[in-house]
Amino acid sequence: MDTSLSETSNHFHYIRLADDIENKILGGIFRAGEKLPSIRKLHDWSGFSITTVYQAYIELEKRGVIETQPKSGFYVRSALPNLLPAPKLKHHKPWPRKVSTHNLINTAIEAMSDPDIINLGCTAPASDLLPHAQLLRIIKSTTQKQTGQWLTRYELPAGSIRLRREIAKRISGVIPNAAEDDIIVTNGCMEAISICLRAVARPGDTILVESPSFHCFLQLIEDQDMLALEIPTDPDTGMDLDSLETVLKTHNVKACILNPNFQNPMGFVMPIERKQRLLQILGPRGIPIIEDNICGELYFDRQAPVTLKSMDAQGMVLHCASFSKTLSPGLRIGWTLPGRFKEQVQRIKINTSISTSSLNQHVIADFLESGAFDRHLRRLRTALKSQLGNTALAIARYFPQNTRITCPKGGLMLWVELDETVDTLEVFQQAMKERIAIIPGIICATTDRFRNCMRISCGSPWNEQLETTIARLGQIVSGLLES
Amino acid sequence: MDTSLSETSNHFHYIRLADDIENKILGGIFRAGEKLPSIRKLHDWSGFSITTVYQAYIELEKRGVIETQPKSGFYVRSALPNLLPAPKLKHHKPWPRKVSTHNLINTAIEAMSDPDIINLGCTAPASDLLPHAQLLRIIKSTTQKQTGQWLTRYELPAGSIRLRREIAKRISGVIPNAAEDDIIVTNGCMEAISICLRAVARPGDTILVESPSFHCFLQLIEDQDMLALEIPTDPDTGMDLDSLETVLKTHNVKACILNPNFQNPMGFVMPIERKQRLLQILGPRGIPIIEDNICGELYFDRQAPVTLKSMDAQGMVLHCASFSKTLSPGLRIGWTLPGRFKEQVQRIKINTSISTSSLNQHVIADFLESGAFDRHLRRLRTALKSQLGNTALAIARYFPQNTRITCPKGGLMLWVELDETVDTLEVFQQAMKERIAIIPGIICATTDRFRNCMRISCGSPWNEQLETTIARLGQIVSGLLES
Repeated sequence: MDTSLSETSNHFHYIRLADDIENKILGGIFRAGEKLPSIRKLHDWSGFSITTVYQAYIELEKRGVIETQPKSGFYVRSALPNLLPAPKLKHHKPWPRKVSTHNLINTAIEAMSDPDIINLGCTAPASDLLPHAQLLRIIKSTTQKQTGQWLTRYELPAGSIRLRREIAKRISGVIPNAAEDDIIVTNGCMEAISICLRAVARPGDTILVESPSFHCFLQLIEDQDMLALEIPTDPDTGMDLDSLETVLKTHNVKACILNPNFQNPMGFVMPIERKQRLLQILGPRGIPIIEDNICGELYFDRQAPVTLKSMDAQGMVLHCASFSKTLSPGLRIGWTLPGRFKEQVQRIKINTSISTSSLNQHVIADFLESGAFDRHLRRLRTALKSQLGNTALAIARYFPQNTRITCPKGGLMLWVELDETVDTLEVFQQAMKERIAIIPGIICATTDRFRNCMRISCGSPWNEQLETTIARLGQIVSGLLES
Repeated sequence: MDTSLSETSNHFHYIRLADDIENKILGGIFRAGEKLPSIRKLHDWSGFSITTVYQAYIELEKRGVIETQPKSGFYVRSALPNLLPAPKLKHHKPWPRKVSTHNLINTAIEAMSDPDIINLGCTAPASDLLPHAQLLRIIKSTTQKQTGQWLTRYELPAGSIRLRREIAKRISGVIPNAAEDDIIVTNGCMEAISICLRAVARPGDTILVESPSFHCFLQLIEDQDMLALEIPTDPDTGMDLDSLETVLKTHNVKACILNPNFQNPMGFVMPIERKQRLLQILGPRGIPIIEDNICGELYFDRQAPVTLKSMDAQGMVLHCASFSKTLSPGLRIGWTLPGRFKEQVQRIKINTSISTSSLNQHVIADFLESGAFDRHLRRLRTALKSQLGNTALAIARYFPQNTRITCPKGGLMLWVELDETVDTLEVFQQAMKERIAIIPGIICATTDRFRNCMRISCGSPWNEQLETTIARLGQIVSGLLES
């Protein structure tokens, strides 16, 4: 602590101390999620009285900058309030559009698997955050008898019964009546979504999506020759349902793909009342909803957010998820609960890939049976929460003043809105030259309305290299702003 | 040997001895592929002179029933000539048709993964014929560092570079200039075909197929809302190209899916001149060909049959194959060389499943690098050859007289044509009650023109249970014939 602090004669010592600590947090000296010095230690260091130090911490708690953890002490909050303003809902007149995605999607996706790139584009937790040592133990425990079964036969098209049973148990918190027979195992969440879309819609059909939405949804719609009808989407509460109702008066819509929990790219959770209203709007019109819940387990609050599927009495929700963000992107195991479309989805699963790898299904089933998943998830959530917090703090430090960011309560990405004049495609291209990957906003919509936005993934534990990377991105953005 | 044989006074002792041995072969006492007693042994057993025994073997060789293997002796031929007549080309007037596949496809496919069913429906080699012990050793040798890489990252959408390099080497015999960059790894051959079809055609488009064709192709065409234009296909030489040329005068065709080597379901290899002519017909019309070569490595002759891809100068052939019939159906690793459609295929791969499981790709790459594949394939081919032979012999023994079967020179299936009055859907249903699975011909076409045909897979080593099963199927067929 600055020794100067102890020399002041100001009556409100504790305010000055609190300001000083807050500056150190914003300056990255104390990191998001980090434990602060105890009252006694800070008293020793700063020379302030025990009372003053205590008052300063209480003041910071009021400001929402730190939080108490019972029997543990004071911690820097991971999500700092009002650090930077949140992006606002962008209005536009929805209209069904042919998608014509940018070629750079492939560049961005290929970058995902390049270990030499500083990858703020790919949304996967860093290697060290995933339980690959435990998965390895499971892989190594495979027996001769098991390979005789798993490797030399086609698994059931719907998936291993044992894995489906484990998934059913696992998701019972967010989908109360899920049974193994409701589930079809897929090659990751993307296969689930691709098959579900092909099960409910045909080329030429119009598909509702959020705006911005996950770029792979748009690419899928493009490759299926469908039209995307993008609904303005609030960065904090999701799809604008008034706008949706208006649109449905004049447009014939065949399906809806959305991501109501920790949305890609913005990170919001759609509030429960909105979820209910969405079902009330689409249900009576017979419009199936493909719900992507891939990050549903990565919540920072106490409870998993509610799924649309749990409120779906009619079987109109095709729920999709995977283990790619929680256990292993490389094993490619996802699943869908396609409701009343199950038969059609299973048929398409067969003529898409016959069935899913048995070995991989059994490795994951073993891990789930071991009971280690909950413990692992608790650690992962804590890590991601602090990573999001530190990334947000760094953006606040290094990006130009009128930057806006979302403040997600789960998942592993932030949505950054820059000055209207900045084109993030330029940012992407300049950053790629320095082997830094981000997702430019332009690929998240059919028009250039998010040209000044970008998605930053926070999968890796915070470190100096990331600090430098965010600083460099800030410089690139500032450079574009001035030019 | 019957002692009566030695008592005859007939001048042509050797003819009687040959007849006797041939009857024992047809009767299943000597099995296809089996070694016959040496000349000396047969002389001892039968009492015939060494010369007579030798003459009898030469006679049987002339009849095409046995063959000599240098320095080894006499063996029962696996493919007996003229055992039963071959099915003939069925003419029909080709017309684009909506596919409406039978529901029983799902029943048939689910049966594939049921270990308690006697599975003559599923075309996979029996567990014991696949090198799962070696694959297990590879799986168990996985290191911590490797799982850190393989499990916690998305593999490149096109697939592991190491595996693609091994595949390129592997297929250089049938696709001379294949390079790793030409290859996209997929979740089995079916994903390759599904993606390739979606890359070159749209709903409403007309797709050329063989008739009969692999039932999953038809189901894929159905689910993509395309039309199937089935070309009459000769059980011995493949698609009737005169008929194809006529059809192309009046119909607009968008793509062709076919299976020129060891075709599913009939087992023929399209002769090279036909392959050339097919390319000459479709090439100038700009019609892409999706070539399924999944059984290309399972040849019984000396050399792998030529691929269309090897003769494709324009990049219009999308070649697809997998390790499912040679190494492991459960690992789900296939690939495609999509020629000039590579960019589009890679895009669709991404929005179908992002990428293929890294673990599985590296397990197969390790196996290929070990050099064990060729040795394994030699054993597998010998086994399949004898299995096909014994199945054909048993069908000849137990099925009604006017049965016809194909005599494939590779792969693992036979196509059986029964009397016109027999409906193999009935055979399927009766057999399923006794837990025997076959593929009824009706699912291999859009009309019922193969109603009296069925596909029998020969993946398992010949044994008494299979003998009983074929006998039982023969009874079911005879029962239907009489009724």
